[in-house]
Amino acid sequence: MNRISLLLVAVATAAGVLVSVACASGRADGERAPIFGIKIYPGYRDWKLISVAHEQGSLNDIRAILGNDIAIKAYRSDKLPFPDGTVIARIAWKDVPSEENDKVFGQAQSFVAGPAPDWYLQFMVKDSKKYAATGGWGFAQFDRDGKPAGEEKLKTCFPCHVPIRARDFVFTHYAP
Amino acid sequence: MNRISLLLVAVATAAGVLVSVACASGRADGERAPIFGIKIYPGYRDWKLISVAHEQGSLNDIRAILGNDIAIKAYRSDKLPFPDGTVIARIAWKDVPSEENDKVFGQAQSFVAGPAPDWYLQFMVKDSKKYAATGGWGFAQFDRDGKPAGEEKLKTCFPCHVPIRARDFVFTHYAP
Repeated sequence: MNRISLLLVAVATAAGVLVSVACASGRADGERAPIFGIKIYPGYRDWKLISVAHEQGSLNDIRAILGNDIAIKAYRSDKLPFPDGTVIARIAWKDVPSEENDKVFGQAQSFVAGPAPDWYLQFMVKDSKKYAATGGWGFAQFDRDGKPAGEEKLKTCFPCHVPIRARDFVFTHYAP
Repeated sequence: MNRISLLLVAVATAAGVLVSVACASGRADGERAPIFGIKIYPGYRDWKLISVAHEQGSLNDIRAILGNDIAIKAYRSDKLPFPDGTVIARIAWKDVPSEENDKVFGQAQSFVAGPAPDWYLQFMVKDSKKYAATGGWGFAQFDRDGKPAGEEKLKTCFPCHVPIRARDFVFTHYAP
């Protein structure tokens, strides 16, 4: 790399650090996602774990699915449909190999949470009246900077969840 | 399968369900793991998320790393060493493809938490006096039935953590 490239990398890295610090506080004052009008829920990172998953292909991420107390209670009681007030959060990180773990295992096998992808944070919010047209669920997606996905993107959420109508449109099973 | 095989499968399945139900209550009265004398912590499944990971190779699992309040506070303040009272829980599930998710994605790409492997639950417990000989950490492992791993197995924990001494012997980074 020449000097200008190095400088650009340094500036980009510094900007990345700033963005990262700005986001750590929770962004309760963030922008509302279109269509469903959902904001980032303050404290979602403290919610209890529903399950984990990872996606290959173009997503190539590893994810945690968390739920607010209403969601966790509903999952553990195994009753459908989910009650109004249920909120499910899905956080995704790039699925990256861990060199330091692999060294200990003596082979390449370990994958951990890396940087945030653009589809970092998603919410499903149950409000059977407000979101009646989409199975009672509102959908939102935010990137690591708290920027919501656009209307076109959010329109694609519900159609993908339709095949799982029998489980109230929720893919994730509770992992005991 | 002949009739006897089918019957055995049915009995095994029923037994599995019973074990699963018995474990859901938390097993606070469970058996102590050898060497470090650690029991399953009641309520660990409600702890906050530190990060997620998955292992290929013979482990072939997907895992969530949770922390008690002391652990989470230490991680978020980014200060080492972890204070006494820190407990880190690692839950693992077999890493299984999800047919129902793959159908929606239109290709094989989705992996979710499956059945519990024998190394289902692990704890790292910080007590700098009690566990002085192993970097201040006690180690325990339990299977899905709450049965602790034996002494020989637990003796292998600390040596693997030695290379990560600079991070107080803890591999997992916090996933923001």
